Amino acid sequence: MKLPSFAVIGAGNGGQAMAAHLSLMGFSVNLYNRTYEKLIQILNNGGIYLEGPTNGFGEINKITDDIEEAISNVDIIMVTIPASGHSDIAYEMLPYLKSGQIIVLNPGRTFGAIEFYNIIIKRNDIDVTISETDTFIYACRSNNGVAKIYRIKDVVSLAAIPSWRTNYVVNLLNLAYTQIIPAENVLVTSLNNIGSIFHPTPTLLNSARIETTDGNFQYYLEGISPSVAKILERIDKERIAVAHALGVNAVTALDWLKETYGSHGDNLYEAIQDTDAYRGLSAPKTLECRYIFEDVPMSLVPISSIGKQLGIPTHTIDSVIHLASCMHEKNYWKIGRTAQKLGLEGKSADEIRNIACGVKEEITVA
Amino acid sequence: MKLPSFAVIGAGNGGQAMAAHLSLMGFSVNLYNRTYEKLIQILNNGGIYLEGPTNGFGEINKITDDIEEAISNVDIIMVTIPASGHSDIAYEMLPYLKSGQIIVLNPGRTFGAIEFYNIIIKRNDIDVTISETDTFIYACRSNNGVAKIYRIKDVVSLAAIPSWRTNYVVNLLNLAYTQIIPAENVLVTSLNNIGSIFHPTPTLLNSARIETTDGNFQYYLEGISPSVAKILERIDKERIAVAHALGVNAVTALDWLKETYGSHGDNLYEAIQDTDAYRGLSAPKTLECRYIFEDVPMSLVPISSIGKQLGIPTHTIDSVIHLASCMHEKNYWKIGRTAQKLGLEGKSADEIRNIACGVKEEITVA
Repeated sequence: MKLPSFAVIGAGNGGQAMAAHLSLMGFSVNLYNRTYEKLIQILNNGGIYLEGPTNGFGEINKITDDIEEAISNVDIIMVTIPASGHSDIAYEMLPYLKSGQIIVLNPGRTFGAIEFYNIIIKRNDIDVTISETDTFIYACRSNNGVAKIYRIKDVVSLAAIPSWRTNYVVNLLNLAYTQIIPAENVLVTSLNNIGSIFHPTPTLLNSARIETTDGNFQYYLEGISPSVAKILERIDKERIAVAHALGVNAVTALDWLKETYGSHGDNLYEAIQDTDAYRGLSAPKTLECRYIFEDVPMSLVPISSIGKQLGIPTHTIDSVIHLASCMHEKNYWKIGRTAQKLGLEGKSADEIRNIACGVKEEITVA
Repeated sequence: MKLPSFAVIGAGNGGQAMAAHLSLMGFSVNLYNRTYEKLIQILNNGGIYLEGPTNGFGEINKITDDIEEAISNVDIIMVTIPASGHSDIAYEMLPYLKSGQIIVLNPGRTFGAIEFYNIIIKRNDIDVTISETDTFIYACRSNNGVAKIYRIKDVVSLAAIPSWRTNYVVNLLNLAYTQIIPAENVLVTSLNNIGSIFHPTPTLLNSARIETTDGNFQYYLEGISPSVAKILERIDKERIAVAHALGVNAVTALDWLKETYGSHGDNLYEAIQDTDAYRGLSAPKTLECRYIFEDVPMSLVPISSIGKQLGIPTHTIDSVIHLASCMHEKNYWKIGRTAQKLGLEGKSADEIRNIACGVKEEITVA
């Protein structure tokens, strides 16, 4: 049997680690990055050095800033760029996609697969499967052709549109990652996006500290104090309520810590303090970071926007979106994934579920 | 001419400094505190030691936790407790007030005088004048009968209800404080409450840092980073807009720094960094501090509530109120000075101005 070939889209921390790891596992891998500078050292070396669970040099098949070259003739396209770039990269890929290809958003944040799907279906001459994970599989750092994987998550959920293709995608990916399991649909992966809880709000509530210390404090252990954790719990409740309205039994942040890291605690603050994996993790060095520019528009805005449509109040999420918008002098409501932009405006929970599952609307003939 | 006698209500940082200073200036001063413990050392000494512009021992006439004893037979009642206690203390004073007495809220925060006035007029058998300043006159610290005044502000504005008594109150207070000048009405003092800008938001946006360092950083110089300052500028714009809707030409926080401290800068961040008076000022040691429990309900809530009524959006202020409520697990919207609680619900800007000025409604006879 021929192994599937991969393209990794984005040579950031995650993309370099993934490309090197896939290569060392024996897969053919192309690596794409929009800016050429990030690729120069990798091009000079012909691949990426990896430290971590696997050590070695991962040779890369094609290292390119040309999207056509990157994705032509590969089976699986692993997107590792920030979700704020999903829409742009979808349009860039669009002319070069071929039937049978699989796109995986690692992760989709909230409603990434739906956003991507809406763009890909403009090509009605091809049949491509779009899917998203609920979280990124690695904890890793990469720099100029040297990647380090600190940890591979035990379990990563994935769902495809249409949802009946999820098992097919999971089976293929299991050739590389046995950690990937199927989720019911992309609403489940999107609403279990735990970054929506742990990324934007602690960053906002430590904004002066980040700016005046260059992030020189422990993000989780010092940045999430009892009061910050109380605000996170409120945001988590709002996320869970929106998920519930969509028929998704999302896992709470507290249970997620217990399940993912075996942490103990009666509340979020205690469980975070009890999470060994968070020891030594520093804050972002600046406020121009993914925790804001990705997670506010691509995680919090869609939860809030769909919440409003379904009558679920999200005052705490809205407050964080608004303050982050003031801070960055950007309107994240406008930039973000709203119901309207996702093509979900005015849809009921059932209709949204059908769209997420890829159910074609029935044409009723009177 | 007999000098007016004073009662200082509240033996906190400000109250102890004020009582000692007034005494050293030759006035008769009573000192009241709700909890007796704070008074024990002062009672043992018979007064308060003062360091600062005047050094010496300020003898206190009556040192008491009995409000009747404190305010009977004094001319001027100086209230120095947090604004969150104004309503309670007004009700406690109510039975013992006498015609001709003057009450000064130091400061009123936002709409303190209106709140107090609404309570005091329940005694229609007496004529008491209620007034408020826009800021507290001292920068000071006090501890157990030893007060230290770092600085006396150059200018403090005061307004009374009714507004035509403002000059009378200012003239009397000028016997002690030449710094006090008349403001047009209590809307001016209330909407120039600069604590609404500098207190709650930087505290909220440094909440984890306060909790994990016990406030061991410079509140203004490190706690108000460029991004935090951008959020403060938005809040300031909302305050100015609400003031404008009420016909008040409020001073911006930037101009206030320039006028008060001679600071330079093109924006709030630069001006704060240029303010020598802020050098060395630490953050609150805990989040259970006046900057939240006083300024959120007594400064931000009334600005927002009146803003809503007049059609002025205050999204940034609202976000801070909401997040502070989550953090303290209190509903500051409910605790705070809303239009409804202030008896201003449904009133137009002109009607609010009339109430603030003490204009009696005309009875139109058809």
